[in-house]
Order: sequence, then C-alpha cells, then structure tokens
Amino acid sequence: MYDFNFSVKTEILFGKDQLKYLPEKILENGSRVLICYGGGSIKKIGLYDKVISLLDENNIFYKELSAIKPNPRIDKVREGLEIIRENKLDFILAIGGGSVIDTAKLLACAVFTDKDPWKIIKKEVKIEKALKIGVILTIAATGSEMDSIGVVSNPQTKEKLSFSSPLLVPCFAIENPEFTYSVSPYQTASGVADIMGHTMENYFSLDDGCYLQNKIAEGILKTCIKFGPIALKEPTNYNARANILWASAWAINGLLNKGKNTSWTVHSMEHELSAYYDITHGVGLAILTPRFLKYILNEKTEKMLSDFAINVFDVEDTNNYRENAKKGIEALYKFFKDDLNLPMSLEELNITDEYFEEMAEKQAKRSNGYVGGVVPLEAKDVVQIYKASMKDEY
Amino acid sequence: MYDFNFSVKTEILFGKDQLKYLPEKILENGSRVLICYGGGSIKKIGLYDKVISLLDENNIFYKELSAIKPNPRIDKVREGLEIIRENKLDFILAIGGGSVIDTAKLLACAVFTDKDPWKIIKKEVKIEKALKIGVILTIAATGSEMDSIGVVSNPQTKEKLSFSSPLLVPCFAIENPEFTYSVSPYQTASGVADIMGHTMENYFSLDDGCYLQNKIAEGILKTCIKFGPIALKEPTNYNARANILWASAWAINGLLNKGKNTSWTVHSMEHELSAYYDITHGVGLAILTPRFLKYILNEKTEKMLSDFAINVFDVEDTNNYRENAKKGIEALYKFFKDDLNLPMSLEELNITDEYFEEMAEKQAKRSNGYVGGVVPLEAKDVVQIYKASMKDEY
Repeated sequence: MYDFNFSVKTEILFGKDQLKYLPEKILENGSRVLICYGGGSIKKIGLYDKVISLLDENNIFYKELSAIKPNPRIDKVREGLEIIRENKLDFILAIGGGSVIDTAKLLACAVFTDKDPWKIIKKEVKIEKALKIGVILTIAATGSEMDSIGVVSNPQTKEKLSFSSPLLVPCFAIENPEFTYSVSPYQTASGVADIMGHTMENYFSLDDGCYLQNKIAEGILKTCIKFGPIALKEPTNYNARANILWASAWAINGLLNKGKNTSWTVHSMEHELSAYYDITHGVGLAILTPRFLKYILNEKTEKMLSDFAINVFDVEDTNNYRENAKKGIEALYKFFKDDLNLPMSLEELNITDEYFEEMAEKQAKRSNGYVGGVVPLEAKDVVQIYKASMKDEY
Repeated sequence: MYDFNFSVKTEILFGKDQLKYLPEKILENGSRVLICYGGGSIKKIGLYDKVISLLDENNIFYKELSAIKPNPRIDKVREGLEIIRENKLDFILAIGGGSVIDTAKLLACAVFTDKDPWKIIKKEVKIEKALKIGVILTIAATGSEMDSIGVVSNPQTKEKLSFSSPLLVPCFAIENPEFTYSVSPYQTASGVADIMGHTMENYFSLDDGCYLQNKIAEGILKTCIKFGPIALKEPTNYNARANILWASAWAINGLLNKGKNTSWTVHSMEHELSAYYDITHGVGLAILTPRFLKYILNEKTEKMLSDFAINVFDVEDTNNYRENAKKGIEALYKFFKDDLNLPMSLEELNITDEYFEEMAEKQAKRSNGYVGGVVPLEAKDVVQIYKASMKDEY
C-alpha cells in the first residue's frame, strides 16, 4: 500500500426529507447564489420550484445559469462567470449531475482569475482559491458530488479534459433517491456504467497490496449489478435508487484508489470519443472497458482478472486464471448489453474509425509516449482497442 | 435505506513517510499542545523521541499526560484537565490507540465546563465546544481516530459508558503501519476482533435495504480474516498491518451504519464486563459475539446469518438458511479461537457468574426495559448469553 492522504469534507444529507436544510447549508457558506442546472428535468419533477421557494422564503439572493449540457462546454463557464461577477455572487448551487457540478467547479475557481477559464484546464493558471459549492444531486453517475475533479469540453479544440483541486470538493450534497426516479432507463443505465467504470479504473492494478480497497470496490460493483437492472425496470424502487446513488460517490471519492497505483486508461480513451463525438460518458466506458480488459489479458493480469470474475460476477472457478478471466470479461459485456440494454458498439453511436489514430496520438502525447495502465499502452494499442469496439460482438 | 447525514472531516495521513507533517498539522489547529499517551511502548519504538524532536524543532509548546490505561479512567481525565488549564493548552495530540484517543476526546470537551467531566458522560452536561484533537495511531482496533465517539470508565460506579459529538472527530490522524509492528500478537488479535466487532454490529440488521453498506462490511470482515492471522505470524508484514490499520477506521466512521438501523447489542454487553472486570474490549467482543448470534438465530434472522456465512466465511451453500447460519457462526468462533488464538471463554478471564443479573439489569435499565438488537433482548436473555460464554465450547 502506497502512502496517501485521504480527506473528504463533503457533508452528505441523504434521504427523503433533507431538502429542507438547503437554506441553512447555503447560509453557512454564502449568501448570494448562482444556481446551475441543465435542461428542464428539475422543473418537470417540481424540484426547481421547491428550491426557489426555499430561497425566497429565506431571502437568499440568486441568479441562474441554465441549459448546461452533458459533456459541459467551456462557453457555458464563460457565460456563468459574467453572471457571478455582475452580481457579486459568493456561492454556487449545482442542481443536477456531473455536467452541472463540473461546470460549477470550474466556475468556482475561474472567478478568481482574470484569465480565460480554459487556461485552468490547460494548467496554465493554478487553482488557488474557489467559491464554495453545494449540490442537489439528481442522477447517480459521476460521483462529482463528493470529489475534487471536474471535466469540461472545448468543442473548438476537440478536447475534453479534467481539472482537480481539493478546493473544489463540494461542501454539501443533498441526495434524495426520489429525485432520480424520473431519470430515463437509458440515462440510468449509463450512470450505472459510469459508476462501474470509475470503480474498475480504481480496482484494476497490480501488486499494490490494497486488498481492503479492492474488496470495497467489489462490493460497489455488486451493488451496481444487483440494483442497476432493478432501477431500469422499477424506476421508483427507492432502495434500488438509494443504493446506486450512494455508490456513485464512493466509487470515486478516494476510498478506492488511495494507496493504489491507478491510471484511468479507459477514461483517457473515452474522453477522446466524447470530445470528438459528444457521446454519453457512461456508454463510452461500457463499450470500451470489456475490449480494454480483453486486450490487456496476459500472464501478468490473468490472476487479477480471474479474481474479478469470481468475486464480482460469481464465475465458477475453473482453476485456470485465463479461463476465469475470459468468463468474467464476457459477463461484464453481457451485463452491459443484456441487463442494462446499452449499445455495445461504436458503430451504433455513428462513430467511424476516421479519427482513431489522431485520438490515440493525443492521449499518448499527454502521457509522454504511452497511455498508462495496468499494462502500459502505446498509441497503436489504443487504436486496436477502438477498432475492437466498433462492432457489437464479443 | 433510512435518511442520514454523513460527514467525516478527519484528514488521514497514511504511510511510512507522514510523521514529518505533524508540526504543520498541529499549527493549523493550535500552538500549545497536550500530548496524551499510554505506557512506554511509544518510547520503546522510538516514536516518542521523534515526536518530541519535531515539536522542539518547531518551537511548539507541550505538556504531557502519560500512563493512560486500557479502559481509560475518568480520574485520568480529571488529571489532564488540570494540566490543560494550568498551561492554557489549546490542542490535544493523542499518540496511541482507542484509550488514549478517547481520553483526549473527553478532555477536549470537558475543558469547556466547570462541572466534573463524568457529568458529560452521564449526559448531565452538554458538549458545546471542544479543543481540536490530532492523532498518531499505534494500534489497529477502535477506529476512534476517525469517529465522534469515546468510551471512558468509572471504577467507583462500575460504569463504562460512551459519549459522542461531531466536535470530537479528530482533525487529523497520522497512520504509519510500521508503528504497529511492535503490537503483541495478543493485542493485535484483540484489535482485529474489535474491528470485526464494530463491523458486525453495523452489519447485522433486518429490512433496511442497505446492500451497499453490507457489501462493504463484508469486505472489511474479509480483510480482517485474511490479514489478522498474517499479522500475528509476521508482525512486520507491512501490507497486513496496513490493511488492518486502514480497515479499523472504516468499520466505525459512519460508512457502515449510516442508513441502517443498528443497535450495538454486543458492545452493551461487553462494556459491562469491562466495567466490572477490566477485560480487553476486543477479547470480550470475540467471546460474546458468536454466543449472541447463536442466541438470536431464528426464522427472522436465519437468512441474514446465512448471507454472513456464505459471503464472509465462504461457507458452501446447503440451500438451508439455518444450516448455513450455524456453520457461519461456528466459523467465526473458530476463527477467533484457532486463527487469532484468543481466549474464548469468560472463565479464562476469571469472570464468574456473580454479577450477570446485575450487569444485565443495568443494560436493560439504560434502554427502557430491553437491550436493543436485531432481536430485542430482555435482561434475562443477556444473562443467558453471558452464561453461554462461560465455557470454551461451541
């Protein structure tokens, strides 16, 4: 186990009856609020009205930044910055999922520089200060509600990149599983794949001795496998929604990766796809992960993947690591396809092989020649994994 | 899943090379330090000297409260309070395990009242303010380094009682697995039993739908089962010590019980034994838990205990919940006895049945007539469980 620091300062208010604490939690941290949200879904479920009433009743000043899209854009951040500055806002309330929260995170720190916010993502400007962020979570997926990371896209440069600072960890998150009842089966499935994707990025590593972390990761994966399909069939099943919602934070808040040597290879590959084709993040992860695992299956990794097969998918032990591993990867593929009903080929997302080399080169360049991973990958390996992801066949 | 709030603000500095950050972490929170520790073990391993050097080099003023014993006493708290007041100390550094940390916790809040500190434990004085506490952990056991709870004994009244406040969560904990190398096999085993005891108190509950929490609990139990015996045989096995050390916090910091309906029945029973006979807490838990589980095994609990058997002890499924459950409880008993070499009878601890009724009545009285639990227990049930714990037989 490697040395690590762990600290998660987010206060979680979880359950049916927690929204009422919103004004008090805001007022602990600020008084002039930028409300960030996406499309109309928070209006449809009545959440928007409830929030506005609570703010009005408590005389809390607010402005709005709406229409934040999945794979959130840098333009939206620029727009939000103007609103914050014009109105001297001092707190950001993100109502939504990862895109809204990540937009809030970049806004929170970008307001303290007079440089363009994209420079923060390009590491040309350091994050030294940030407004406090609160979250009302409406989808189980990214875990951005309890971590320090954001991901924002720049369509002009075809880049989707992450940024991070402990200053960006939300100070509170209100999580009511009922707020996720109206999430569509497709988005629910994508969210579950996203949670599993984060968990697997943290889980797959060699020789770091982090048994505890891996056992917890297996528990999170099993939770997704059990409740993902239930949430699809019974969207208002409280316990299914609750278990998935709470799992989303723990997949990525540090518990699973601290002490380990992780590299987030599949995310690197997926971010390029999203940057070029604006696809749903969780779907990209679902398509790429089984192909990635199949590609890296070798003498070094077969024991690790055999453990995964047995402990996560209850594959019967054949006393042959390689065989177990293959069955586990296949079970993962089938789970995404048959149980979560996700598209399992890039073809279905209208992606061609046109930019595979370009995307792979970009990743290799960012990582000094090879894309990290349990098995180090070069650009040509990434291209192979993309190609293997084209057709829906295992 | 029930509504809950979750927040753990402790910053963990885990690993071989973290002690150097001690001065900086102290100075973030105070400048005049009370160092609390137990016997001479921190001197034997050289930790005491290292800490003193770091404080001296950084001109940090300190006083000491030493010789804090297991099952820490209220007298020691009274002694510490005088030192804090005389020297106007503003920060407490606990170097040790649960006893030292719990003493620090009561000191931290008792200094803000002119009443006797025992009144805080008796809930006659409210905890409204507390000094900040830092921890250097030297044994994997209570998890007090990352929770809000303390337990202190009063030999005069034969009471061992807990107190709790979010204000008492340590602000940082430095955890170097190497600091636990010198912990004796017996204390190591007791610590592992303590971690498992906490985990099982959180794990065993009915109908709350907290699958995620239970899967994580199973992972923690499996970690103890895997690494406990290794740590006994190879005291300097870094990964064994590291996994157990990190597990200790997660067994009790809120992750396992939030959303659930837990009752900590075995702790209630064990605290009476410790109050009357000053036994090692983890050993008391190890002796009582299998007898408790056997006693509550019925139609309602057999499925829960069958899951435990299969998921934690890899008992082969007989397709009969009751049979599986019995095998699981037996496996737990044997693990404590054969793998951790713990005494498994009260007789071996020189405990007679003299005070069983008195102890049971005390517990029932505290809980309005019955001792809570997965199955509600009356005083007479508690007596039966004590009696079943007398002999080393399963």
